[in-house]
Parts: sequence; C-alpha cells; structure tokens
Amino acid sequence: MQYHLNGFKPGNYQVPDEARKPYPEPPIVDLPNEVDVLIIGTGPAGLTMARQLSEFPDIKTCIVDMAPGPLLFGRADGISCRTMEIMEAFNSSEMVVKETYQLKQNTFWEPDEANPENIKLTHKIADARAGLSEFVHGIVNQARLHELLLDGMERSVTHLLPHYSRQLVEMNIDESLTQDLDAYPITATFKRADEAGEGKTETVKARYIVGADGARSNVRRSMDIPLEGDSANKAWGVMDILLNTDFPDIRVKSFIQSKDHGAVMTIPREGGYLCRFYVEMDLLGKDKRVKDVKLTEQDLIAKAQKIFHPYTLDVKEVAWWSIYEVGQRLAERFDNRPVGSSDDIIPRAFVAGDACHTHSPKGGWGLNTSLPDTFNLGWKMAAVLQGKSHPKLLSTYSTERRKVAQQLIDADRELSRLVATRPTAGDSSQQSTVDTAKIEAFMKRQSGFVSGTSIEYFPSYICTNQENQHLAKGFHIGQRIHSAEATRVADGRSQHLGHLVKADGRWRIFLFGDAQDPREPSSAAYQFVDFLANDESSPVQKYTPKGADVDSVIDTYAVFQQQDLSMHDLHDFLWPAKGKYGLRDYEKVFRAEPSNDIYDLREIDRSAGCIVIVRPDQHIASILPVTAHEELKQFFDVFMIEQK
Amino acid sequence: MQYHLNGFKPGNYQVPDEARKPYPEPPIVDLPNEVDVLIIGTGPAGLTMARQLSEFPDIKTCIVDMAPGPLLFGRADGISCRTMEIMEAFNSSEMVVKETYQLKQNTFWEPDEANPENIKLTHKIADARAGLSEFVHGIVNQARLHELLLDGMERSVTHLLPHYSRQLVEMNIDESLTQDLDAYPITATFKRADEAGEGKTETVKARYIVGADGARSNVRRSMDIPLEGDSANKAWGVMDILLNTDFPDIRVKSFIQSKDHGAVMTIPREGGYLCRFYVEMDLLGKDKRVKDVKLTEQDLIAKAQKIFHPYTLDVKEVAWWSIYEVGQRLAERFDNRPVGSSDDIIPRAFVAGDACHTHSPKGGWGLNTSLPDTFNLGWKMAAVLQGKSHPKLLSTYSTERRKVAQQLIDADRELSRLVATRPTAGDSSQQSTVDTAKIEAFMKRQSGFVSGTSIEYFPSYICTNQENQHLAKGFHIGQRIHSAEATRVADGRSQHLGHLVKADGRWRIFLFGDAQDPREPSSAAYQFVDFLANDESSPVQKYTPKGADVDSVIDTYAVFQQQDLSMHDLHDFLWPAKGKYGLRDYEKVFRAEPSNDIYDLREIDRSAGCIVIVRPDQHIASILPVTAHEELKQFFDVFMIEQK
Ligand SMILES: Cc1cc2nc3c(=O)[nH]c(=O)nc-3n(C[C@H](O)[C@H](O)[C@H](O)COP(=O)(O)OP(=O)(O)OC[C@H]3O[C@@H](n4cnc5c(N)ncnc54)[C@H](O)[C@@H]3O)c2cc1C
Ligand SMILES: Cc1cc2nc3c(=O)[nH]c(=O)nc-3n(C[C@H](O)[C@H](O)[C@H](O)COP(=O)(O)OP(=O)(O)OC[C@H]3O[C@@H](n4cnc5c(N)ncnc54)[C@H](O)[C@@H]3O)c2cc1C
Repeated sequence: MQYHLNGFKPGNYQVPDEARKPYPEPPIVDLPNEVDVLIIGTGPAGLTMARQLSEFPDIKTCIVDMAPGPLLFGRADGISCRTMEIMEAFNSSEMVVKETYQLKQNTFWEPDEANPENIKLTHKIADARAGLSEFVHGIVNQARLHELLLDGMERSVTHLLPHYSRQLVEMNIDESLTQDLDAYPITATFKRADEAGEGKTETVKARYIVGADGARSNVRRSMDIPLEGDSANKAWGVMDILLNTDFPDIRVKSFIQSKDHGAVMTIPREGGYLCRFYVEMDLLGKDKRVKDVKLTEQDLIAKAQKIFHPYTLDVKEVAWWSIYEVGQRLAERFDNRPVGSSDDIIPRAFVAGDACHTHSPKGGWGLNTSLPDTFNLGWKMAAVLQGKSHPKLLSTYSTERRKVAQQLIDADRELSRLVATRPTAGDSSQQSTVDTAKIEAFMKRQSGFVSGTSIEYFPSYICTNQENQHLAKGFHIGQRIHSAEATRVADGRSQHLGHLVKADGRWRIFLFGDAQDPREPSSAAYQFVDFLANDESSPVQKYTPKGADVDSVIDTYAVFQQQDLSMHDLHDFLWPAKGKYGLRDYEKVFRAEPSNDIYDLREIDRSAGCIVIVRPDQHIASILPVTAHEELKQFFDVFMIEQK
Repeated sequence: MQYHLNGFKPGNYQVPDEARKPYPEPPIVDLPNEVDVLIIGTGPAGLTMARQLSEFPDIKTCIVDMAPGPLLFGRADGISCRTMEIMEAFNSSEMVVKETYQLKQNTFWEPDEANPENIKLTHKIADARAGLSEFVHGIVNQARLHELLLDGMERSVTHLLPHYSRQLVEMNIDESLTQDLDAYPITATFKRADEAGEGKTETVKARYIVGADGARSNVRRSMDIPLEGDSANKAWGVMDILLNTDFPDIRVKSFIQSKDHGAVMTIPREGGYLCRFYVEMDLLGKDKRVKDVKLTEQDLIAKAQKIFHPYTLDVKEVAWWSIYEVGQRLAERFDNRPVGSSDDIIPRAFVAGDACHTHSPKGGWGLNTSLPDTFNLGWKMAAVLQGKSHPKLLSTYSTERRKVAQQLIDADRELSRLVATRPTAGDSSQQSTVDTAKIEAFMKRQSGFVSGTSIEYFPSYICTNQENQHLAKGFHIGQRIHSAEATRVADGRSQHLGHLVKADGRWRIFLFGDAQDPREPSSAAYQFVDFLANDESSPVQKYTPKGADVDSVIDTYAVFQQQDLSMHDLHDFLWPAKGKYGLRDYEKVFRAEPSNDIYDLREIDRSAGCIVIVRPDQHIASILPVTAHEELKQFFDVFMIEQK
C-alpha cells in the first residue's frame, strides 16, 4: 500500500490517491437539550469515549467540537501496540494494521569522530517493543485513526455522529444535584463557530460531562483544576514532508545527533514516501515563547539540513508543520471532586487526554495516553448509567489514570533530557551532545511503558488478589491481558483470546482448566462452571438481568489442556442457549495448542489451573484458584448491583 | 465476530446485527449510449470483471443486471484460498478473512455397524487444503463477497456503479466490424425490469461484451454457443438454517451418510450460528424436472432429520433454501470466434462463469471458478484497450479458462458420484452407501484444484520456458505465484511477496539474486538490473510510455540472499525516482528471512538465482536464468506493443 507519491492527501487510505477526498464538511444539526453524557472534543480522547458509549442504545451521548469537521492533517502519528489492541477491541484493527508504517528498527547517528561535522551511523537495532503484543507499533496520520473511530460510531446501533462548529463557552455544575443519579447537574453553553451561525448559542443539560478538549481545556478551567509542572522554553519543530535524500536510513526511525546544530528524530510514515521530522530548534530567551519567534517551515528545513550534513535533504512538499514548546504538566485531579474526597462521592465531570496531561510529543505518548484515558472511563460510565455497577466505580477513573499520567510525565522528562542537546534554558546540566546509547537504554527499559502494554491499575477493588499471581505469571494483574492463541474446540479455529474481549461493556471470566478432565463432574473446572451456572449467589446469576442472555454481563470462556474434548461432553453452561431461538453458542471453549501452548506462554499452573477475571477494558482484575467460588462472589459484590 | 443469533440479516457484517440493513435499492440511472466494455450480470464473474476494469480511468465500463439491486441471500458460500488471494489482489482480503468461517476440519459419518439406523462418526481430519496458501478456505454468504467487490468499484478512480433493473433482451454482433479495434460491433438491447420502467427499452453500443449472465445466459444464446454435457435428473436441496441439535460436529464440515435415507453435507457458516445443509433428495423419474416435484423447505428438513438419526435437528429459521438438479455442462467455446479460429482473430464477445460452465455446487466451485474466469479476462482486455498489448491476447482467455472448466466438470462428475448414494437416475452403477474414505481420498488428491491454487495455464506464449522450472521448483510456471515472505531491506518489514501483485494491470519481474554480491557491477543480478534500466531494447524501456513512471507497465522487485544490504548501495533502478516530485520508491528490494527462507520454501537455486515473470493475474508466465536478457526481451516482444 503506497500513497502520497504526488503529494499528501488526507482521507480514507482504502481509496486510491487519485480518487481520495477528505470528508465533506458535515451538516449542522441542532444540539439536543438533555443528554446522559456530553463529550467536549473530537480528538482521540473524546472519540474513544464516544465510540465506547455508541455501543449502548440506552445511553444518550452527544459529542461536540468547535472545529468545522474532522481533523485532516498532522499532530500525533504513533499508534502504540496498546492503542492497536484497543482498536481491535472496537473491532477496527484491520485497517490500522494494514495502513500503518510498521516500526521494526531504530538507527542512531552521531558526529563522525574522524570528521565531526559529518554524522555517522553508530548502530541499527530492532525496535525494543517487538514481541510485547501481537500488534506492532505503527505510524499513521492521527486523522486516519479518528476516521476509523468515527466509522465505528456511525455503524454502531446508535449511529452516533459528532456535532461540529460548536465552541463550549461556559460549563456549570450544580453542586446540589451531583449526588442525585437521576439529575442533570451539568449545564453547558455553546457558541456557534461557523459564519452562518454567528451569534447563535445553544445550551445542553447533561448527567455527566467529559472534557476531552485538549491542552487549553475549557472544561478543566471551569472546574478550577490547577495544572502542576512547568512550561519549559525549549522549542521543537515538527513537519510531515515528502523529500529526496541520500541519507540511507530514511525509511527507519532514526535519532540523529550533530556536533554543533542539535538533534533530529525522523519517523518514516505510512505509504512509503512521507516522513516526519522532529527538529531541535535553538533555545528561546528566558521569557520568550514560541509565538514570539516567528519561525517558518523554511527555518525547520534549514536547521534539519545542517544537522544531516554531509547528507542532503531535498524537501519537495511540507504536508504539515508546527512548532511547540516542551513542557510537562499534569492536572491536580481528573474529576470534579475536591482532592481527598471519599470514593463514595460521585464525580459528574471529568477531564481526559491533553486536557489533564501535556508533555513533549517525542515519546509518541499524547494520543496513546489520551485514548486509553477514556477507554478506562467509558465502560465505567456505561455500567453506572445502565444500573449495573455502583456509581463509586467512577471515582476509580481519576485514581487509575492519574497515576499513569504521572509516570508519563516522569518518563517524558527523562526522554526530553536525553534527546535534546540543551534540555531547557533553565537547565544547568547542559550537555553538548546526545548520548544515543542512553536513548537506546531508555527505550529498552521503558519498552512496556512506551508500547502501553505494561500500564498497570494496581491495586484497587477492581484489581485484586495479587497473592494468586503465581497461578499465571504471564497474566499481570492490573495490566491488560496479554493475548495468546488457543484452538476453538468446536471447529478447530485458532483464536487470539485477547480479541474475545471486545469493548462491549462485558466482564470476562477465563477459566484455565487444571490437570483433571473437565468432563468429570468431580473436577474443579466442572464444579466451577456449575457454580457459575447454577448457584444462586454466583455473579452470573446475580448480575445478569432476568431474561437477558447468560453472557450479557459476564462472559465466560474456558481453556483446557485436554486435546480430545467435544463440546457436548462439557457442562452446557459452556455452550449456552441464547437469543430468541435459544441457539447454542459454540465459541466459548478452547484447548491449548501443543506447538504454541498458552499454559507455557503465560506460565499458567498446569496442575492447578486458574480463573482470570478481565475487565471490560481488557485489564486483568483478578486471578483466583479454580476452587475460589467464594472469592469470586466477593470480587463482584463490591461494586456490582443485583439485577431483577 | 458472531452474528445472526436472532435471525439471519444480510448486509455489511461490520455493522452489528441490530443495526445492519441491506443495501437500499439503488436509483435508476440512464444507460450510456456507447461504452468500451459492457458486462451483463452482477454475479461473481460480472463483478470481478467490473472491479478489474474500474481500476482504469481511460476505460469506459458499464455493468448491468436485471435484478433490482445487489444479491442478499443464499447461493454459493465457499471462498476458496485462491479466491481469497484474488480479493487480496483487489486490496479487499481483510474483511473476507475476518468474517468468514475458517474451514479447518472435516468429519465423516456413516451408518453405525451395530445399529445401522444410527449414524456414527468414522473420522475427523484436518482439511486437505491447509498450507496450500497463506489464506484459509472460508465460508461466507456470496452476497457479502459481492458487496466487497462493489465497495472496491465505488472507491476506485472510476467510482463504478452497476445499473440494475435492466434485462438484456437482444444482443447483436456486427461481424463486419469485429476486426476493427476502434469499432463498436456490439449492440445490446435492454428492457426495464422494474414496474416504473415498464415498456421502456434502452440500447447500448460496445466494443466488447462480457456475458456473465449465469446459467441461462442470454449472451451465450445470442452467440449460438452450444452446451455440452447433460442435465441429470438428480435433485439436491440446499438450505441455510439456524438450528439447535445434539449432533456434536455441527460446527465442522461433515459428510453424513445414512443407511436408507441418503446423504447430507453440512457446512458451518460465518457468525457462529448459521449452517448450510446440502440434502440428497430422492431420484426424479425419467422425464421429471425439479420444478414438477413441488418440494418445500419442510421436505428438506424432514429428509435431513431422517438422515441424522439418532440426532435431532430443531430448525428455528430457514434463511434461504433452494432445490437444484445436478448436471455438468460446458459451453463449446467461451468467445464469439468459431471453433478452430486462428488466434489472430479478435474476439469481441465473451461468456464467463455459470454462463459457460455449470455443475453441482457441492465442490464449492461455482463462484470460485466464475470469479477467476474474469480475473483472467479483465487485465487482458484492459491491456488491449489501452494499446499496451496485441489484441490476440484476448484469444487466450477462451483457451486458458475452458481447459479449467473442463477439469472442473470432470472433477464434479467424480465428486457427485462419490457424495450421492444414487448418482443419477440413468446411472446403472447404483451404490447404496457413500464411501466416505473415497471422498476423503478425492479431497486430498484434488486439494490443489479444490482450493484453486494449482489451476494451471499451460503452455502458451504467456506461460513459457518450462525448461527453467528447476531454477525455482516451488514456483510452478502456469500456476499462480505461491506467496512467501521476505524482509524489506529499507525498513525491516516482513512482506508477503505475492501481495505485491495487485490487480492493477501491471506485469511483475521478480529477480531472485544469485550467490554473488548484487552490489558488484560484475554480478549477474546487477547486470540484469542494468539491462532492464538502461538497455534500449529492454521491455521496461520499450513498453513503458514515455513520461510514465518506470514501474507503470512492468514492476520490478529484487530479493537477495545477502543480509547486509543497504538500498543506496544498490543499482538505483531498484529504488527508482517516481511521480511529479521524483520521490524514491524504497519498497522494491527484499532479503530472504533466515528463519523462513524463501529460497528454501520455493526451492530457488541459491547459486544461480532466477527471474520469475508474473502476469497481472498473478500467474507465473516464465522463469529465466538471471543472465537471459535476450529471452526476456523475446518473451514480451510476442504480445506487447512498443510505446512512444
Ligand atoms: C498542533 C498540535 C501538534 C501536535 N503534534 C504532535 C506530534 O507531533 N506528536 C505527537 O505525538 N503528538 C502531537 N500532538 C499531541 C496529540 O495530538 C495529542 O496528544 C492528542 O491529540 C490528544 O488528544 P485529546 O483528545 O486529548 O485532545 P485533542 O486531540 O487536542 O482534541 C481536543 C479537541 O477539543 C476541541 N476543543 C477544544 N476546546 C474546545 C471548546 N471550547 N469547545 C469545543 N471544542 C473544543 C478541539 O477543537 C480539538 O478537536 C499535537 C497536538 C497539537 C494540538
Ligand atoms: C439459485 C442458485 C443457487 C445456488 N446455490 C449454490 C450453492 O448452494 N452452492 C454453490 O457453490 N453455488 C451455488 N450456486 C452457484 C453460484 O451462485 C454460481 O456458480 C455463481 O454465482 C456463478 O457466478 P456468475 O457470476 O457466473 O453468475 P450468477 O451469479 O448466476 O450471476 C448472473 C447474473 O446475471 C443476471 N442476469 C441473467 N440474465 C440476465 C439478463 N438477460 N439481463 C440482465 N441480467 C441478467 C442475473 O440476475 C444474475 O445476477 C447457486 C446459484 C443459483 C442461481
């Protein structure tokens, strides 16, 4: 798949360059008066929230942006392994995988000792993220990712479409209503941002609001949430370019350090021709900001050309460029509850994404942290709105994601120091060259964080029972389930188990069978399944609404070591009757693949087996012994609401 | 991906069941007066022809069907490995792979010797097609495949859409014009098939016509092409059903043979619940046809229930059903030239798909032979219309595809005998039971044919130089290139080489390097590349229009054994400058992967290397020594037209 040979063209990459057109500007449709959830911003955070909620026909969602239509150019372009996994959960990974540049290697260039004005390759290495996920870190225009989320929303049961050209100008929370679940404590006022709408305002009442409105978040400001950290006065330039060069590693991600002119990081892009350059610009004076300096794309190109000496850069087209200042800032809290509030106080307003954490773009963390923010919040809000879970669940969003953001800020501080020759104007530890070996070491050490695969929610009542971690050492409690394959018993198909955990709000229980034959009613596996199926106090019995499919709240899968199983010999809860016809679902049971054994890969105790409880956002909530019926009940009883 | 739990719903499977709607009926747009190519029929054959031609903005194509809109239900459902590969060539394999049931196993059931009124599992085996392609044989509603082809047409540069509700009533060929390339010898008259259009007729003139109008082809009849073979009076029923059953292998393809009631073949379908049954019905009397018997779906169900004894079938919904007669028929010729015509006579009218070959559906060959018919014809017609190739190329369609159809008819006769207890009414060799071991042996022996991967066009001037087969024993001259992976030198990405051969009308030359370092100008590989690049008589020089990209007619790739290559050390023809900016294309050179070595996998001579010439339809046209510059010229000179 090659594109952009004759110039950058945004839009659907499944349409050839010659025919590809950006989205037409969407029509203006009146805002609703009252909604369950109001989302401000159609960046990755806002769209992920909307995409998640679009799955639920009983939730009324509205998503709004001041822009006239979807993003077309620039911004982030790194799609981490974890973001790929989340796109898979939204049933949309195929095009991301297909269209992205796959990051497989890195090169490091430093001044040539013999001729220090020239750069020279020091080493080429495999990307440190290889193997952390079944997906590869990919690079693609952020706008394309937006488009896939928008497609998913439109195709969903709710056919959700954003409202554009609406700027949030005021947001109020009626504090007297925040603890009343049925109330609409949020009032948001919008100004039309298009010419035709000049002077028009609209007001929306909402039960909940999510401020995914970027670094200058109005929602955050309305909640008086202070930002911690500094806005450093170090400028970097970024540009997406089509170029010819004799630099040999132009199709490999490269860190390039010159002797006298600073550093460049290059990232090859989708389609075979496009390339992104991050160019270190000169230091800004003490009180200068980027906007005072009036740099142009020509300055970026000229700077890059100096750094690349003796190689030449012949830039043919600049598809997009920008200059930004490096600064690491973190919101004091991610919801409207004052610091130190009890978990039982229900938050009604949230900030997510750049609205609550900003940092340099070089680690590729902006999009890849913003999107999981709302992937964390989305299912919780749905569960509360649908009356499945206690509202206190909503407080865990801020605790879980703020910790991640703090790690991110710390990592970004470190990386920014490593990739810049002069980290910040104020920094006394000025270095004149970048130590590429240190960057390499950082990337290796932080690979799980960089790829998003080792992000951990831990510990809390929805990530428990760490004492059982030894039962499956390769499934880290608190982290997302690291997918592996097993063979479906009914039809012999090989299936990535992680891909069963779709973003549909359901919990999953994976039973990994012990050594005993699960066909024997005396076996622990059979007993466990029978408990789930028939015990009045089992979470499946308690939390599934009467009349709903048995897997509609908690979806149970079994993986066995035994190779000779037949579905009909197993407990019939494992091939449950569903839907209006009572059709049997044959896709719940798997066996380990002898040549690719999930018990080996994930270090599952073969003799004891285990139960792995997976949250709707794919994070592992708990690991239990197969016999731990009581603990299983207790786990869910903390936050689930019994159904009639 | 599960669907159809609460009833079968046609349409885009990326839309959830609750929201999925079939295509709305398309609007009626006037037919054009004059076109280059007129296609009758929007089945797999017609759509593949249209999809192929939609790639070329300089070709005016019109595709017409008498139905009011796209197909929604039933018909074929097996997607062979080769059909998957063709969908990949059309850049549309992902959804087919994702949505289809993957055929991995077969079971065979026969009367239980102890209780012959009961059926009993005799054996379960892996499907014989495993490993023949990087794709797996899949099962999905034929309509969904149509939809993916239609999507591709609509997204193409020509935005091609079919015209529905038009029945071809007359087709004339003006014989005095057929040898004049610029003339429009075809006149087709259509009657509107919708109520609003009653009485309206339209006339279209065309340079070429393709009759992809199914078994009762009007185009075939207008050309007076006789059908050879017989219409046997053996009836089979087919139905797509949602059911509950205690039959344990309901999610595995099964051949079931009862003692007294005949046979059933079951094929699990996409989405986890749907299943197709082929049910052997009773013999028809000597002059009886199916339409005289007045069978209903209830008869099919009743028959199947008897065969399945002691298992029960509780059918909840019949999504589609049909009854057909087994008969093997083949058109005498596939174009308008009389039998025995010289290859130099230009054919102007063609038949493809069911219009020229019909047979029983049990091998799943209908769709899977019809679609490759026009995949063979499409690129040839484009090359002739674009003035790239001599019109005699068009005669090879009939030769190449009729041979395949003949093999198909023979195979189907054999299979029909094997799977039916009483093959035909007239057949004296009546057997009372099916020998499932024989079916298994047949499937194993014919696996390459059944999967479509061993279909061979051989020998002709576009499949030559068999004496060099030993240079790469795993690339069969005449067969489609069997894809394997190699690592792209520029960025380390692993790439299926077969997937580089997209259906864009281009020829491909794959250079597999010999043992010598290709950076050395004296090496055979370097010399070969230099010949292609710089020799006036090289096919790249001769057949590429001046000003067009160097790879626009013949696209050259190189694969080397050496692991330490860098693009810039290689001949610059291998990273050619293209497009308006002269950007370098870095995606032409690969190295063998040590752990998955294409030289080993495809038995390529490591010391000598070789040249593999691949046709636009992915079939291997020739294999040459790396030094065979002269033979390479000769190969193309036979049918290509020199460009200015
Ligand atoms: C100019 C720019 C350049 C960037 N470059 C890079 C880069 O090179 N590499 C990298 O990794 N990351 C880059 N990023 C960061 C990356 O794009 C973000 O981290 C990511 O998009 C954050 O997602 P988000 O959803 O939180 O916010 P955003 O994507 O910023 O989305 C916020 C949305 O809210 C809307 N909005 C804001 N205020 C209002 C309001 N009052 N009313 C209505 N709508 C409002 C905005 O129009 C916007 O669409 C860049 C960001 C920007 C803005
Ligand atoms: C009822 C039925 C059941 C089938 N069941 C099975 C099965 O169970 N398993 C299996 O493997 N295969 C089955 N097949 C066969 C399989 O569908 C075909 O082999 C395959 O579709 C052939 O493709 P085609 O493009 O050649 O023709 P078709 O798919 O038959 O398409 C021909 C098209 O031409 C149109 N047409 C015909 N005459 C005219 C005219 N005069 N003017 C305008 N348009 C016209 C028709 O409306 C139709 O859309 C079945 C076919 C049919 C018709």
